[in-house]
Amino acid sequence: MKILGVELPIFMPVATQGSVKSLSVSELQSCGYKILLSNAYHLYLRPGVDIIQSFGGLADFMSWDGMILTDSGGYQVFSMADLRRVTEDGVEFSSHIDGSRHFLTPEDVINIQLKLKSNIIMPLDEPVAYPCSRTDAEEAVRKTTVWAKRSKDHFFKFFSPGDEKRPLLFGIIQGSVYNDLRERSINEICSIGFDGYAIGGVSVGEEKSLIYEIVDFSASKLPSDKPIYVMGMGTPQDILTCVESGCAMFDCIIPTRYGRTGTAFTWQGKKVLRNSGYKDAAGPIDAQCDCFVCSNYSCAYIRHLFNSSEILGLRLLSFHNVYFYSKLMSRIRESLTGGSFKALKNKISEFYKEG
Amino acid sequence: MKILGVELPIFMPVATQGSVKSLSVSELQSCGYKILLSNAYHLYLRPGVDIIQSFGGLADFMSWDGMILTDSGGYQVFSMADLRRVTEDGVEFSSHIDGSRHFLTPEDVINIQLKLKSNIIMPLDEPVAYPCSRTDAEEAVRKTTVWAKRSKDHFFKFFSPGDEKRPLLFGIIQGSVYNDLRERSINEICSIGFDGYAIGGVSVGEEKSLIYEIVDFSASKLPSDKPIYVMGMGTPQDILTCVESGCAMFDCIIPTRYGRTGTAFTWQGKKVLRNSGYKDAAGPIDAQCDCFVCSNYSCAYIRHLFNSSEILGLRLLSFHNVYFYSKLMSRIRESLTGGSFKALKNKISEFYKEG
Repeated sequence: MKILGVELPIFMPVATQGSVKSLSVSELQSCGYKILLSNAYHLYLRPGVDIIQSFGGLADFMSWDGMILTDSGGYQVFSMADLRRVTEDGVEFSSHIDGSRHFLTPEDVINIQLKLKSNIIMPLDEPVAYPCSRTDAEEAVRKTTVWAKRSKDHFFKFFSPGDEKRPLLFGIIQGSVYNDLRERSINEICSIGFDGYAIGGVSVGEEKSLIYEIVDFSASKLPSDKPIYVMGMGTPQDILTCVESGCAMFDCIIPTRYGRTGTAFTWQGKKVLRNSGYKDAAGPIDAQCDCFVCSNYSCAYIRHLFNSSEILGLRLLSFHNVYFYSKLMSRIRESLTGGSFKALKNKISEFYKEG
Repeated sequence: MKILGVELPIFMPVATQGSVKSLSVSELQSCGYKILLSNAYHLYLRPGVDIIQSFGGLADFMSWDGMILTDSGGYQVFSMADLRRVTEDGVEFSSHIDGSRHFLTPEDVINIQLKLKSNIIMPLDEPVAYPCSRTDAEEAVRKTTVWAKRSKDHFFKFFSPGDEKRPLLFGIIQGSVYNDLRERSINEICSIGFDGYAIGGVSVGEEKSLIYEIVDFSASKLPSDKPIYVMGMGTPQDILTCVESGCAMFDCIIPTRYGRTGTAFTWQGKKVLRNSGYKDAAGPIDAQCDCFVCSNYSCAYIRHLFNSSEILGLRLLSFHNVYFYSKLMSRIRESLTGGSFKALKNKISEFYKEG
């Protein structure tokens, strides 16, 4: 399956504030990435959507010669903003930056993403925390559906459904850990009808096994002719497990966050480069990797950079990790075509088993 | 005049701990740099010279396909280390990292730099603060001469003077703000004889005009057939002024430090990119600059990165500034050949006047 001409499954590096932390757009391109993820909530607050619109959209603002999926910011409003108040009509909140008061309706959130010129747009939803009572989860499902309908109606004021150049609009599934609510959400969102479906409200504190169950259950109920996107996941193991369940799109801060804190992803598992064992290690992070970091720099040098708080260390390691994720997705795509996915999953899982 | 095949005057980016802050070696190479500066004191303490030696030297450790000048660390011992005790034989100090006790003789400092495989080696000297009494300045000159002699004697146990592949050894001039002491230091250091001469102990708190006077006086007394290196300077104005006095080598943290704090060097003077005036500025940092940052990114985007504490901002601006310095030195070299130095100095000074 493809999305916007890009073969799935894919991983999207996270450019929350319009930058994949420490990396240049040409570096991201050199990894083979075609779609980045950014965040409407953050960009709406800073620098403001009008500035970005004046540049012709977010891709042009950040000089990214590729596509962008923007998260609506629903999750950020619920996890970062203060003094939050949810009404039938939208969300009122205080900016986590300057405390300023904002009110956003589902229509506003579509407008923001249209101004950002996102290629894939996510509607405003109501995510819930974990654990979450059945009543709260039920209400979040209801509101997410109402808002999804309003989002779609608003979106198609600007485009005809047959317009091949229009952005894509996804639907988001909620329902917390309750299978019947997940199923209800799927039925409601799918009957509205979207270009793809995102499984939201997972990986918010649940056990891994429970996350995998929810994703597997949801993916089995979603239409198989549209891409399924698992929001905010994950580790190599998460991705392999969710791909097996039929999911095709992923985003996660893990490769860059781990890169900033000194942990490398390799084909032999994670490596904590601060460990003293690497103090005179002349080899690259991963002998099987052909990225510019592994082609040029030793573990000992990168360890020295981290120990000396040199910015270059986190930059090099972020690049390596983002490159690793790109190669991981290539291997997954090849294995799906070649019928060797199960073998690949077993091989990588050996090194990336959780716990 | 050339040094190690490199046409002078040059600016050397500062890789204190074995990394020019936030920049990759291939980026530095793309700017045209051939010689970086690093610091024996820092590398001796962390990661330790034996580790670097096991990689074949500092250039190989940091994957730098070029040359390196190492500062002896004299200045760092006197400015950063605690519990410092200077004897006739050397300096005893506590590490600023872990408080460990160290004692280094002039011979040790040569050995460290030989292990680092530096291309240009600086002897241990005794810098002084400003203001500095005549008595203290006189004693520093005396000790610097004694140590310089010991450094040279030790150095030439490993090389014959005619060896064309040996590293270069520079002498350092002290004398604070006292012209007669500067002259005494120059006479003593030059009678020992070195491959080049560094003017040390300037820019430690004096007024700019006084710094320029000392440099001009010292340069006028130094032999004109050897490179003169002004340590730890400077701004574009500093460099132009000191080149006019006959100096040929410079190092300074300014381009990267300003880059990390949001100030750009341009051919129209400095630009503070955090200023709100740049919030929707679509143009590059400098329309006259052809670096990859100016070719790709707008002021507004870079301002947004700084305002959002995104690492990419300081990385892009550090690159631009280091590129600017490389071009500044190219222009200076061309102007010296073409006889238009004075015109270039006047033109740039217009935008970089101090105060």
